[in-house]
Amino acid sequence: MSGSSFGKIFRITTWGESHGPGIGVVIDGCPAGLALSAEQIQKFLDRRRPGQSKYTTKRNEADSVEILSGVFEGKTTGTPISLLVRNQDQRSRDYGNIAELFRPGHADYPFTEKYGIRDYRGGGRSSGRETIGRVAAGAVASLLLGELGISVRAYTKSIGPYTVDEDDYRYSEIEENSLYMPNNTVAEQAGQYIASLMAEKDSCGGIIECIADKLPVGLGEPVFDKLDALLAQAVMSIGAVKGVEIGDGFKASLSSGSKNNDPFYARDGHICKKTNHAGGSLGGMSDGSRLILRAAVKPTSSIARTQQTVNTSGENTEITVLGRHDPVIVPRAVVVVESMTAITLADLLLQNMTSRMEHLRKIY
Amino acid sequence: MSGSSFGKIFRITTWGESHGPGIGVVIDGCPAGLALSAEQIQKFLDRRRPGQSKYTTKRNEADSVEILSGVFEGKTTGTPISLLVRNQDQRSRDYGNIAELFRPGHADYPFTEKYGIRDYRGGGRSSGRETIGRVAAGAVASLLLGELGISVRAYTKSIGPYTVDEDDYRYSEIEENSLYMPNNTVAEQAGQYIASLMAEKDSCGGIIECIADKLPVGLGEPVFDKLDALLAQAVMSIGAVKGVEIGDGFKASLSSGSKNNDPFYARDGHICKKTNHAGGSLGGMSDGSRLILRAAVKPTSSIARTQQTVNTSGENTEITVLGRHDPVIVPRAVVVVESMTAITLADLLLQNMTSRMEHLRKIY
Amino acid sequence: MSGSSFGKIFRITTWGESHGPGIGVVIDGCPAGLALSAEQIQKFLDRRRPGQSKYTTKRNEADSVEILSGVFEGKTTGTPISLLVRNQDQRSRDYGNIAELFRPGHADYPFTEKYGIRDYRGGGRSSGRETIGRVAAGAVASLLLGELGISVRAYTKSIGPYTVDEDDYRYSEIEENSLYMPNNTVAEQAGQYIASLMAEKDSCGGIIECIADKLPVGLGEPVFDKLDALLAQAVMSIGAVKGVEIGDGFKASLSSGSKNNDPFYARDGHICKKTNHAGGSLGGMSDGSRLILRAAVKPTSSIARTQQTVNTSGENTEITVLGRHDPVIVPRAVVVVESMTAITLADLLLQNMTSRMEHLRKIY
Amino acid sequence: MSGSSFGKIFRITTWGESHGPGIGVVIDGCPAGLALSAEQIQKFLDRRRPGQSKYTTKRNEADSVEILSGVFEGKTTGTPISLLVRNQDQRSRDYGNIAELFRPGHADYPFTEKYGIRDYRGGGRSSGRETIGRVAAGAVASLLLGELGISVRAYTKSIGPYTVDEDDYRYSEIEENSLYMPNNTVAEQAGQYIASLMAEKDSCGGIIECIADKLPVGLGEPVFDKLDALLAQAVMSIGAVKGVEIGDGFKASLSSGSKNNDPFYARDGHICKKTNHAGGSLGGMSDGSRLILRAAVKPTSSIARTQQTVNTSGENTEITVLGRHDPVIVPRAVVVVESMTAITLADLLLQNMTSRMEHLRKIY
Repeated sequence: MSGSSFGKIFRITTWGESHGPGIGVVIDGCPAGLALSAEQIQKFLDRRRPGQSKYTTKRNEADSVEILSGVFEGKTTGTPISLLVRNQDQRSRDYGNIAELFRPGHADYPFTEKYGIRDYRGGGRSSGRETIGRVAAGAVASLLLGELGISVRAYTKSIGPYTVDEDDYRYSEIEENSLYMPNNTVAEQAGQYIASLMAEKDSCGGIIECIADKLPVGLGEPVFDKLDALLAQAVMSIGAVKGVEIGDGFKASLSSGSKNNDPFYARDGHICKKTNHAGGSLGGMSDGSRLILRAAVKPTSSIARTQQTVNTSGENTEITVLGRHDPVIVPRAVVVVESMTAITLADLLLQNMTSRMEHLRKIY
Repeated sequence: MSGSSFGKIFRITTWGESHGPGIGVVIDGCPAGLALSAEQIQKFLDRRRPGQSKYTTKRNEADSVEILSGVFEGKTTGTPISLLVRNQDQRSRDYGNIAELFRPGHADYPFTEKYGIRDYRGGGRSSGRETIGRVAAGAVASLLLGELGISVRAYTKSIGPYTVDEDDYRYSEIEENSLYMPNNTVAEQAGQYIASLMAEKDSCGGIIECIADKLPVGLGEPVFDKLDALLAQAVMSIGAVKGVEIGDGFKASLSSGSKNNDPFYARDGHICKKTNHAGGSLGGMSDGSRLILRAAVKPTSSIARTQQTVNTSGENTEITVLGRHDPVIVPRAVVVVESMTAITLADLLLQNMTSRMEHLRKIY
Repeated sequence: MSGSSFGKIFRITTWGESHGPGIGVVIDGCPAGLALSAEQIQKFLDRRRPGQSKYTTKRNEADSVEILSGVFEGKTTGTPISLLVRNQDQRSRDYGNIAELFRPGHADYPFTEKYGIRDYRGGGRSSGRETIGRVAAGAVASLLLGELGISVRAYTKSIGPYTVDEDDYRYSEIEENSLYMPNNTVAEQAGQYIASLMAEKDSCGGIIECIADKLPVGLGEPVFDKLDALLAQAVMSIGAVKGVEIGDGFKASLSSGSKNNDPFYARDGHICKKTNHAGGSLGGMSDGSRLILRAAVKPTSSIARTQQTVNTSGENTEITVLGRHDPVIVPRAVVVVESMTAITLADLLLQNMTSRMEHLRKIY
Repeated sequence: MSGSSFGKIFRITTWGESHGPGIGVVIDGCPAGLALSAEQIQKFLDRRRPGQSKYTTKRNEADSVEILSGVFEGKTTGTPISLLVRNQDQRSRDYGNIAELFRPGHADYPFTEKYGIRDYRGGGRSSGRETIGRVAAGAVASLLLGELGISVRAYTKSIGPYTVDEDDYRYSEIEENSLYMPNNTVAEQAGQYIASLMAEKDSCGGIIECIADKLPVGLGEPVFDKLDALLAQAVMSIGAVKGVEIGDGFKASLSSGSKNNDPFYARDGHICKKTNHAGGSLGGMSDGSRLILRAAVKPTSSIARTQQTVNTSGENTEITVLGRHDPVIVPRAVVVVESMTAITLADLLLQNMTSRMEHLRKIY
């Protein structure tokens, strides 16, 4: 089935394996007339590039993007935008020893059962490099949203038990620490925590938060394609994500209706909410408040410790996952969460154009 | 856009408003040859019917289902299955006073902004009655899964702060208490908690857990249509759900790789996992272990207390939501979560048939 | 698979068998704010109703439509529009003798091979009654197009060898003869031709032409979803249609570039074409000229003559198809072709809204 | 909208403009375990390459394909297959003079109106080079069908008025003449006809026929996704195609039921048809007979003669289309029609796997 596509109007299709010739994405349905350059996309890709801090893998992946179609004289033409990133630093040797072993926490076993064949080099299609296509498309979606004044921003809320409370958010510090946390002090502590795990050949996880501002009211379709539902799919489809919540999320299950309901009030002709427990979504549609979502990221599965496993012949054995791996993928996944959020919003923005006869009359 | 459909092969389309002539669903893509009767579907619908305990609304909704197409001589024919439930107990008067008010926590405001028109009677399309179509389709999906030995079961894990710990699960007790909790003692305490909130014209939320057993390995598509991702969309698309997690979910973000990875081992020619932190999904595909997901349900938004709000003219005012409402929707939502899980699994089961050339050769 | 749905934004899903409880359609994606009543839909349905002339079956099918959802206070709400027509005159006896026979020219044999089960009563899902859902949806699409000044109209161009040449078109006469031909004289001759075939227990076919005026320029997507391509699918999906052409169609294969190219010229600030060999479509997009398509309809397969066939046990035998059948389905299929054209155009009109950034800025 | 994708399970997405960096296709949903090499795809691409005879353009397009993903150790892995063909011989100068002119018969005018921007170089996205992606995907589809014993073959039935009658078909001669006609004598006459038009700076069209053998019975979905309907969309979506028919097609409209119905008979336990007026499709599903379809191709729109037109400022003017163009595109379009047919069949073959519960039991 076509599981490599996402979106209905702004529709992306990613392709590529970690150790094949390249990785890419085709974006179909981007409106014509959006200013777009390879440089703008590259900026997004650079945010997920490894080797930028001591907490990310030392692999040197230039990940340089080429626009193959859909842009003419600096503007999108309305035709599919094909983006290509060649794979370069492919040390296939490092992965040779796992051809016949199923790595715990990885897709190796179900992948083999599903297809009967597996490109074992670096995880193949299940590699984190698959997200390159998502981030490239996320850059385009973000530019589209930006034209309409909508901003999307993700950051690290927590690394293991080290969390930044909402009261301590300092957004300006996000770019100042290599963990992309909105608080340098917590980031410092989280860094030491990561270092201690690295020393034990272990890894950790964390929580990424993503916010979007200035959304028009009414984005999201009322039943299965609710704003929250599509964001949940979008974000849960990122490799290591094991949970997604909107607004107060799981905490809401502990609250009461009188506390959890956000009262409306009018100010200067606008309808506002006194609180935002809902995280910007009511009945699956944007409500004009800030959109807030969180994604729980599991600890990196590739660890250098010896682990028990089974080989492709079904025999009990041990495995030591070699290669260069991130002790925590949260910082690099921040831009992936942001990208998937932007793609979902761009798609719903386009879908919403067709909701009223009045809109047709404005255009035709 | 077509936001009222879900699934790619086993594809359901729901329709209907709470106070219109009826509610229904069309299931396209159900394989031919499945034994199916209205009675079997009715059993599922009866599980979401109100009026069954003191914690659910007193509305008397018979919700009797009629099969309009797709079944011949007791078996599905491969053509669309159309299911209809007529609305009966529609006290439109109760809702008259909210025609010009935006209820806090409800879809009223974004719905009006999106469409410029709103069927205000009982929430219209955003009513909980929309889930009737989902549950009717869930019954069909469950029967299909059952034919292949797959079982899906949901229950209430917690009501507000009253949680059943995994060690205390007694599955046989689920049907013994009106909250569908796997522990009668906790259910008793939770019931008192609900009663205390009802006395204060307030409401509460909770957590629903859903498990599936005997899934073939490899269900789910590796990128955007991961098992977890589609389940997240499916479950988050239920009205009051604000968070979804698979396996250890948010807790995994606090763990380490060495603890969170589930080691493989072989037994009697089968590949098993020593633990199941992953909740039955690796790389977005089923791994042969029990599938476990949880959904966080917010407190019922409709409460009898007076709340601050705005009217459709943009003026500050107050609202008192009359009518008969559940103080907690969790017990009635259990079968909805189970249904959406079953529908997602049935669809992925069918999708997965086309994954290998070997499968084609078995059929052609 | 979901073969019972058509369209991407204005998306219809039909369901129902000829001898089940009813036939219907769900329209998802119709914009909110379109005035819509059951009477307006009924008018369309009445055009395909049998028993209106001596050349159509004598079955008495009231085919009364009920709007089950999606309309509130006379306007569409943006939610799915569910339309139901109960089956009434179901003489199952007439079809009993064909339960174990494969009727020549019918779907019986491949249907049985595909599904292993077949609702043999009156053709089941492959009955012409399936088009009731299409026509009901076509009514809604036509109303939507009408709001934007677009008109769609189909008529009978030929019955067997009796053709109305373009020079002899008198559109006002279409409603004056029971064959819906734009020339009463040719219709008279065609009527005698049909009568002669009826006398021999035989049937005939013909050609339906459909035109659309005042289309905006640019409808249709440049590659697979070309205006012509989607119209071809839409019209070829009608039971008895065996060929589709746009503009000069097959005749264009005999022409030369210098004759077939339609020269452009400017008049009063508008870009026009001197001729319209293209039939209103260039590169798969509407070009501002009249859209013209033709559909070839095969002779009715159900004839009272004895025919050779095979039974479900694989034995050679004979069949005499009883029941009341149209000697030619062309007149009743006219409104079906018109409906499928309108549905396709409505969908492409909505799709086209998202083609330019400028359009987004007009709405947001 | 996503108009650059086709198919539901075997789903292709093409991208690229004639004068951009390259052209390509992503195939998602191809089952794992199909032997596939660049050489096999190249063979198909070479069939559409220009410069092979005096009747095709002299442009030298190497059109060398690179497999970027989805194949490992010579077999498909079940992940998306990305195929890239770099553009090489891009004489942009030749097209400079048409930047501000709308070429008659081309997409220039509606494209500009639709998007507000147009890559005018060589037709951009509306160039015939877009079919490279289709043919590359068609190669993969053909290999898949071949594994199941299904063959698909297209050829030129007529060039202008020069037609090969069915009685005169000599399939072995198809590869012997540069027009791919199944009769060398007619091909010789057609060649002279083309030469005479070239001398007058004019062009011609023709008819392509495509046949498929050994299809399983039951391919195609009964309502909108009928075998005929999807083939009609697939083939009509090819640039210059103006008409499509199945079996007797338009001729069937002149026949009678008693002649047009194909009688069934049993032979050696198989169900056969005495005739094949239906062209292998009954009720939109394959019936076990040879599938036959025809596509009408209009004369090449690019002719060197001076033509009347309008410029982008809306002024009347003249145009002379320079560059190297095929006087007839039929021979090069043969492999495109074959490819689109193969892609449609592969997709329906995969869709059909899910039609029966029995099929599920064979796999799970």
